[in-house]
Amino acid sequence: MKNNPIGVFDSGIGGLTVLKEIMDVLPNEDIVYFGDTARVPYGPRSKETVTKYTFQCINFLLTKNIKAIVIACNTATARSLDKAKEKYDIPIIGVVEAGAKTAASITKNKKIGVIGTEGTINSRAYEVEIEKIDPKISIIGKSCPLFVPIVEEGWADTDIAYMAATRYLQDLKNENIDALVLGCTHYPLLTNTVAKVMGNSVTLVNPARETAKDLKNVLMKEGLLREENKTPKYEYYVSDGPDKFKQIGENFLKKTIDNINLVEIHRY
Amino acid sequence: MKNNPIGVFDSGIGGLTVLKEIMDVLPNEDIVYFGDTARVPYGPRSKETVTKYTFQCINFLLTKNIKAIVIACNTATARSLDKAKEKYDIPIIGVVEAGAKTAASITKNKKIGVIGTEGTINSRAYEVEIEKIDPKISIIGKSCPLFVPIVEEGWADTDIAYMAATRYLQDLKNENIDALVLGCTHYPLLTNTVAKVMGNSVTLVNPARETAKDLKNVLMKEGLLREENKTPKYEYYVSDGPDKFKQIGENFLKKTIDNINLVEIHRY
Repeated sequence: MKNNPIGVFDSGIGGLTVLKEIMDVLPNEDIVYFGDTARVPYGPRSKETVTKYTFQCINFLLTKNIKAIVIACNTATARSLDKAKEKYDIPIIGVVEAGAKTAASITKNKKIGVIGTEGTINSRAYEVEIEKIDPKISIIGKSCPLFVPIVEEGWADTDIAYMAATRYLQDLKNENIDALVLGCTHYPLLTNTVAKVMGNSVTLVNPARETAKDLKNVLMKEGLLREENKTPKYEYYVSDGPDKFKQIGENFLKKTIDNINLVEIHRY
Repeated sequence: MKNNPIGVFDSGIGGLTVLKEIMDVLPNEDIVYFGDTARVPYGPRSKETVTKYTFQCINFLLTKNIKAIVIACNTATARSLDKAKEKYDIPIIGVVEAGAKTAASITKNKKIGVIGTEGTINSRAYEVEIEKIDPKISIIGKSCPLFVPIVEEGWADTDIAYMAATRYLQDLKNENIDALVLGCTHYPLLTNTVAKVMGNSVTLVNPARETAKDLKNVLMKEGLLREENKTPKYEYYVSDGPDKFKQIGENFLKKTIDNINLVEIHRY
């Protein structure tokens, strides 16, 4: 079991920023990634539909003999993590909790900003988690609809990104937050741009990084860390558009993506 | 029958640019607009699903005693107009054909550009229509994923829009096109920005405008033009988020939107 792969899934390619951190924090582990590119985005879909899709993703990954699951998607985590934990018997880690915990531990003035897609911001997923930890913290959410297409175009470090960030983040600057959660899996690619706009007084929290650390802790606690010291194997599965996945994804992962296979996910 | 309303639908709010042109070309007519905001966007969905949704939109509009239908959505037109015309007995006008016809009649050097969402560009919907008219015309398509969120943010006339347009349209400028189809219902709001980038030698074609003129012709031919000269009645229906529809939609329509009602569209 220890030598089995970890399963990671997202509604598309955004989860590759989480995968990247897992590769970094757990360089020994084999990983199977599934991107549900045929049904992206999950954000506008109902809770029932997202839960059905989440279960299908997990069912597929289970056929690869995985030892743990990371839901590398904010929407799927917010809407379906609890249900998935009830239904399945292996460790399942979502992408919201770790980021919320870190943000709550960092803030000194108890003012945290959260940026994400409209779906994530409206779901108040980070707010709910942070309130559990410290109800005195106030959270200011802001959706940034241009950020995902900017990242997917490869424009994260352009003037366009900087100008969009300046517009989106002005309210958060005015509110004097001291921690900012990058609450969308695409956003870590905008770290430089967002940091430039927000300035030194605001600490950026990357939930992808925190989730990878959380995963390591869970694997250690469960005695599931891989012990063999060998080159890890990475496999990629998508439900549509492997070429686009490769083209955009390599910019997310900062490495070559080979071994991409198509899956008919609705069969699972 | 002549005094019955016209039905117009889209996957969301984009179709309001078509509605605006219809109001302008046919100022006498009552209109019922339906925006399927719960299931937007149609672009990534299969042909079968889009056809099912299209039929549901039409079934709903038929309960309002409409005399003609305008499919104010590029995806629904490309994937389902033929099937809808087979199934229903009233005049149905799509948004692609009229734009294609106008572009083909305008071009002198037989080089037309088409911009739209990734779904529309990949569907080659305009290409297919233009080839039917003149197979010697070459068509250069370009998807512009940032344009829809830019318009929805109300940023159509900002530097961000201009910089994005400059990047997206460079290839089309290099190809020396002399006509450019705004192949997405959101894009007419970017007319000034796109015109500034493309320059005087390129004529912009707004399919929304052409569709409204087409509709007028069809109604005249069928003897369905309204004869009463009275203030027209406009009704709006959406499947989700009436507040957002009002807020963004008024910028599309350049007038106040009242009378917005929620519809459970999956029941139709």
